[in-house]
Amino acid sequence: MAHKYIVLIDSPDKKGLIQEITKILLDFNCNIDKNDEFVDKDNQIFFMRSEISVDNIDIALLKKTLQLALSKESNISIIDKDKKKKILILTTKENHVLGDILLRQYDNDLNINILAVISNRISTKSLAEKFGIKYTHIDTDNISREEHESLMINEIKKYDFDYIILAKYMRILSNNFVEKFQNKIINIHHSFLPAFIGANPYQKAFERGVKIIGATAHFVTKDLDEGPIITQDVQHVSHNYSLEEIKKSGRVIEKNTLNQALDLVVEDKVFIINNKTIVF
Amino acid sequence: MAHKYIVLIDSPDKKGLIQEITKILLDFNCNIDKNDEFVDKDNQIFFMRSEISVDNIDIALLKKTLQLALSKESNISIIDKDKKKKILILTTKENHVLGDILLRQYDNDLNINILAVISNRISTKSLAEKFGIKYTHIDTDNISREEHESLMINEIKKYDFDYIILAKYMRILSNNFVEKFQNKIINIHHSFLPAFIGANPYQKAFERGVKIIGATAHFVTKDLDEGPIITQDVQHVSHNYSLEEIKKSGRVIEKNTLNQALDLVVEDKVFIINNKTIVF
Amino acid sequence: MAHKYIVLIDSPDKKGLIQEITKILLDFNCNIDKNDEFVDKDNQIFFMRSEISVDNIDIALLKKTLQLALSKESNISIIDKDKKKKILILTTKENHVLGDILLRQYDNDLNINILAVISNRISTKSLAEKFGIKYTHIDTDNISREEHESLMINEIKKYDFDYIILAKYMRILSNNFVEKFQNKIINIHHSFLPAFIGANPYQKAFERGVKIIGATAHFVTKDLDEGPIITQDVQHVSHNYSLEEIKKSGRVIEKNTLNQALDLVVEDKVFIINNKTIVF
Amino acid sequence: MAHKYIVLIDSPDKKGLIQEITKILLDFNCNIDKNDEFVDKDNQIFFMRSEISVDNIDIALLKKTLQLALSKESNISIIDKDKKKKILILTTKENHVLGDILLRQYDNDLNINILAVISNRISTKSLAEKFGIKYTHIDTDNISREEHESLMINEIKKYDFDYIILAKYMRILSNNFVEKFQNKIINIHHSFLPAFIGANPYQKAFERGVKIIGATAHFVTKDLDEGPIITQDVQHVSHNYSLEEIKKSGRVIEKNTLNQALDLVVEDKVFIINNKTIVF
Repeated sequence: MAHKYIVLIDSPDKKGLIQEITKILLDFNCNIDKNDEFVDKDNQIFFMRSEISVDNIDIALLKKTLQLALSKESNISIIDKDKKKKILILTTKENHVLGDILLRQYDNDLNINILAVISNRISTKSLAEKFGIKYTHIDTDNISREEHESLMINEIKKYDFDYIILAKYMRILSNNFVEKFQNKIINIHHSFLPAFIGANPYQKAFERGVKIIGATAHFVTKDLDEGPIITQDVQHVSHNYSLEEIKKSGRVIEKNTLNQALDLVVEDKVFIINNKTIVF
Repeated sequence: MAHKYIVLIDSPDKKGLIQEITKILLDFNCNIDKNDEFVDKDNQIFFMRSEISVDNIDIALLKKTLQLALSKESNISIIDKDKKKKILILTTKENHVLGDILLRQYDNDLNINILAVISNRISTKSLAEKFGIKYTHIDTDNISREEHESLMINEIKKYDFDYIILAKYMRILSNNFVEKFQNKIINIHHSFLPAFIGANPYQKAFERGVKIIGATAHFVTKDLDEGPIITQDVQHVSHNYSLEEIKKSGRVIEKNTLNQALDLVVEDKVFIINNKTIVF
Repeated sequence: MAHKYIVLIDSPDKKGLIQEITKILLDFNCNIDKNDEFVDKDNQIFFMRSEISVDNIDIALLKKTLQLALSKESNISIIDKDKKKKILILTTKENHVLGDILLRQYDNDLNINILAVISNRISTKSLAEKFGIKYTHIDTDNISREEHESLMINEIKKYDFDYIILAKYMRILSNNFVEKFQNKIINIHHSFLPAFIGANPYQKAFERGVKIIGATAHFVTKDLDEGPIITQDVQHVSHNYSLEEIKKSGRVIEKNTLNQALDLVVEDKVFIINNKTIVF
Repeated sequence: MAHKYIVLIDSPDKKGLIQEITKILLDFNCNIDKNDEFVDKDNQIFFMRSEISVDNIDIALLKKTLQLALSKESNISIIDKDKKKKILILTTKENHVLGDILLRQYDNDLNINILAVISNRISTKSLAEKFGIKYTHIDTDNISREEHESLMINEIKKYDFDYIILAKYMRILSNNFVEKFQNKIINIHHSFLPAFIGANPYQKAFERGVKIIGATAHFVTKDLDEGPIITQDVQHVSHNYSLEEIKKSGRVIEKNTLNQALDLVVEDKVFIINNKTIVF
């Protein structure tokens, strides 16, 4: 029976690229089930995501053939469609985002394998353990910010993971941390960025009297809250919402927005270019 | 300078189609600016929409070459991207949908050329004429439904048009009418179809106590309110809305939903397959 | 310290009602923290929900005083704001809606006390038990529909509950069942009712080619899928969604829509009048 | 036949206020058709909006009676429900927001009387005049910013108006201007404030790679883009939107958001408190 792969390509744009790539896929007897392309005009880069079915295939050879045909600046990945993404989750004290991810893994609704939950507080432990997930508490007491982060990094490095999910991890990450895991850290920020950058966005939203609150799932880069946005969602609020009610509404948007982003990332539908994403 | 065209292809699906088509486009020295493909698995039909730029080109020859390469059941169109779509608008007594289309043409916000407004009531005349649009009133008084429709058809046939827009034209069209203008009539229905099929959807929505009202833009087929849906949109309402307030909210959704559909149709982004649409 | 109550009143409308009621509340030294009123013009019924704070109060006397002042057709409830609502959950085989409610109770995000989960399938057992909730499986094998329902009713009657939540309970309830628990059964239907009434709404939505799918939380009455709607929500889909992808998107809307409804019901913000709701 | 009025009250909060006010309304034989109240806990201010019907009434006496009963810091307005709001519209070069307001007045969809359009560019003239609206062009050529604003103020002062609508008026207003027309100027800003404050929000949104764009209707205060927000709305966008397509989508949100705000303001549903609004 045919096996399914996802082919991801980004390459400097030039005339004839689609023809060239699809010719090679055809030569390897691949059937294209679904195909998305996009040209970023500002950067003159071509992006392509193909879902292919093929019977027997030498993936390494296909990749090499594509690489030879395209320019040296191209990036090519060929991914087994069914393989679960390996995930680390970082939390602080809130359960709702973590819980939703745990439930979705439990329910086979998200193609992930949660390797562990690592937390600077103990409050999410009971929930993680209900679902049989390994839990590591790295306390912040009596140690410096640098020491804590260093312990976190050591713990993280024990795992062979695809992505780190910040499920309301309420610590600012240093450049050192972020650079170690480039394009691998996904955060949920509780505002429709770039509104209310930084701490206490709900408090700020309440004080500003906005009529819409939101959440933003984004890759984490050195610049706080400035990383490439994957998904955003919003909800209408009114003068009738207390700060507590804004926070409660916000929790729903947070978990939904992050989960939309996880669906996209897990299905290899997200490319990063500079501080933006291409989402197929 | 390069000229822009849109290539629309639907074809029985087979392996290698994209390669075959893009090879021909390359042979004709076309640059692909934007490309969308979709395979309808149920019907095994491949759909493709390419925006291409090319310097000098024999469009007829390109089309013929594509037609020869693809199976006989394929449909191929090559459309000048800048050419305005020629539109007839049918109205009854309401101004809001008509007005929004008139404004968008006036403002060069929609790439259309409104040839005429044809109405069974006189009430929209003043608005159409403000914008210098030809207006024909075909009264329903003292004539049968068949006679009226026959007069409408005769009037419509005077024009070389691309689409007929039913901008709140509140008459049921006969099969005879619909078959004459297949895939060319676009209607705005004031419900989120298939809820509240038929007459007085707002009244029915009010009586049912729904918390969401909507509108649906669709191609008109023989089966009333059953044609391929192009766009739908909705708005939250509450017990606090009177029937009049529901209707008022509805007017906003109606004009927005139809205008979204017009954007898509005018930019040749909509394919029809059976009672569904593919919208790129 | 002041205690908080919710006063719910519906009464045939007449001039001076608000003054009369608020006078009594003032006489009992109640402070009105929040007040909502609505007059259903069609039925000439006045609805009021007041959140009050008061130090020491004889609730029974306040209720009696209000009852004496208002007409005999009036209904008055005075509810302790902090008291948890007692909930029974009925499930079949799906985990996602159940899971979200369990998580929200676990996280103190919803002011409920889940007494038990009762299911006609065993598949949700493991999830309920993770959260320490009592689970009863009433199998449908080798018994008639009537026998099964009778067993369900017997089990339900063991509990002193406020509401029965049908968390994707996929059995049609008989009139007999519904009448026993009038205005106490809340269902989540996976369509934006009244579209796609009955079985397999996602299949029907897919076949119809709608561009929006939805979910509806409603009280269950004798007429299938015709009960008073509490909340509805929707999501845009496209030709690009397979039936499986529609179902997956639908699961998110289902759990969110039901949870919005539960928030409202649990906070005593929902009145029922005929087949409609007033939602403050 | 009964006449309809809207009673607007804000007052320092105290126990018994609703009772006191509704008692007076009852004494004057007013029937309350619709009633909304809100207590701003932070500022301890009570807000009330009542729609009343009454046969014969001395409005001045009712107002005086209410004023005597309430504290001196209270504000009371009693407004004839049917009276059109008198509007001045300021524009620069864009037609779409202006056009939508003109259409709604033409269609009796908004209870306003547009007194004049005043513009610093001539480009909206033709549209305003189609609808028979007086148009004044105050050119910015060869004069200082101060001189221009002074000419604008002189022109505005010729009119007895309720509100000034900035329908994409692209000039920054001085404190002097804003203070002259406090709580009377409504602007539409083309971002979901406070994101992208200042100039070129769409350009900034495009560069930031947001997945949602929006618009904000707000009262104008001395602090640029910091005034009380009336309504906000948003729309999802993707990497696939060019800057031009973002602007085009934005135009739809701009006109819809401002028109929602106008509905609310025209129906006297908006209170201002500090930099926030209460919207009933």
